[in-house]
Amino acid sequence: MNFPSKILEKSVEEISQLPGIGKRTALRLALHLLEVPKNQADNLANSISQLVHNIKHCKECNNLSDTEVCIICGNSFRDDKTICVVEDVRDVMAIENTHQYQGKYHVLGGRISPMEGISASDLCIFPLLERIKEKQVVEIIFALSATIEGDTTMFYLYKLMKDLKIKFTTIARGIGVGDELEYTDELTLIRSLQNRVPYSQDLI
Amino acid sequence: MNFPSKILEKSVEEISQLPGIGKRTALRLALHLLEVPKNQADNLANSISQLVHNIKHCKECNNLSDTEVCIICGNSFRDDKTICVVEDVRDVMAIENTHQYQGKYHVLGGRISPMEGISASDLCIFPLLERIKEKQVVEIIFALSATIEGDTTMFYLYKLMKDLKIKFTTIARGIGVGDELEYTDELTLIRSLQNRVPYSQDLI
Repeated sequence: MNFPSKILEKSVEEISQLPGIGKRTALRLALHLLEVPKNQADNLANSISQLVHNIKHCKECNNLSDTEVCIICGNSFRDDKTICVVEDVRDVMAIENTHQYQGKYHVLGGRISPMEGISASDLCIFPLLERIKEKQVVEIIFALSATIEGDTTMFYLYKLMKDLKIKFTTIARGIGVGDELEYTDELTLIRSLQNRVPYSQDLI
Repeated sequence: MNFPSKILEKSVEEISQLPGIGKRTALRLALHLLEVPKNQADNLANSISQLVHNIKHCKECNNLSDTEVCIICGNSFRDDKTICVVEDVRDVMAIENTHQYQGKYHVLGGRISPMEGISASDLCIFPLLERIKEKQVVEIIFALSATIEGDTTMFYLYKLMKDLKIKFTTIARGIGVGDELEYTDELTLIRSLQNRVPYSQDLI
């Protein structure tokens, strides 16, 4: 591209570093920022700086937080004897959106994936073990992705903690609500048959 | 969305103000910025600030520029008796990429579009008229979009300048190079028949 201005070129360069944003989209976004009121662009720039410099990881659960201890860990009404282990903050948000879970979380910060060069040592695991002992945790719920990487991570964590006297559960795998049987893949069907549960009207 | 952090929420809010970026994508981008080295996010924030505060419009052609007069207008090797009128900076970049045009430009900053509330007074037209007189321009090339709005803008400008002793041309409309005739729309075919040119081997 033949940029008429170095400043424009630099900002297009920086914006196009973001995932899923190519040079063309970056140019469109940069020109959009030149059209909107200057304070909107300033707010964007400030919020990016604030984000990377001021956000913390909760020292208990490793979730993103504005404070040392996040809102969920700081909430004494929540059951701290149940810990739901998730990969990242988006998973916490997804479960929180259901308004059904009243326990606490532990955010690993990823999953074991040799393909992406992520090993167990890159994950936040040690603080989880500490917490289990300290808080006399009774149940660990694994809520990881239903992928090989998710399964590997779950297996690794289970092996690490299996001697502790706690209950280990994992979120159910089966056909999604609203899915049709004929379009469901074989593995999912096998899992949902194996893990069938007693019929109850509450489940529907 | 249930954000675990106000700072994260604010930045997702700001990022999702950008066109074509929803809340979910904004969250993905924000979390990406937290993963990359801090200076990459700082560079992004700085380049956005730089962009909106330091970029100028060339006082001659209204193109974006780092200096009072842009690189193209400041280039004395280019013919300043031919002015190519375009809608915005992307059009200048597109034509410059062809390396075929040696004249100068005038950037209107949009096109007349009653639907979007853009009238002639929102465009940069007066400096073009001034320049035509000052530089004894001999040809104005209209390189506007082949849409109703583009045509309206071209008609408006032509009416405004038709008494000046200059040649007005517009970029050719016809079937695109590589297009097949059977998939070309009627209007384009009519235009390309009406504006047929003498056969020459150079055209192929």
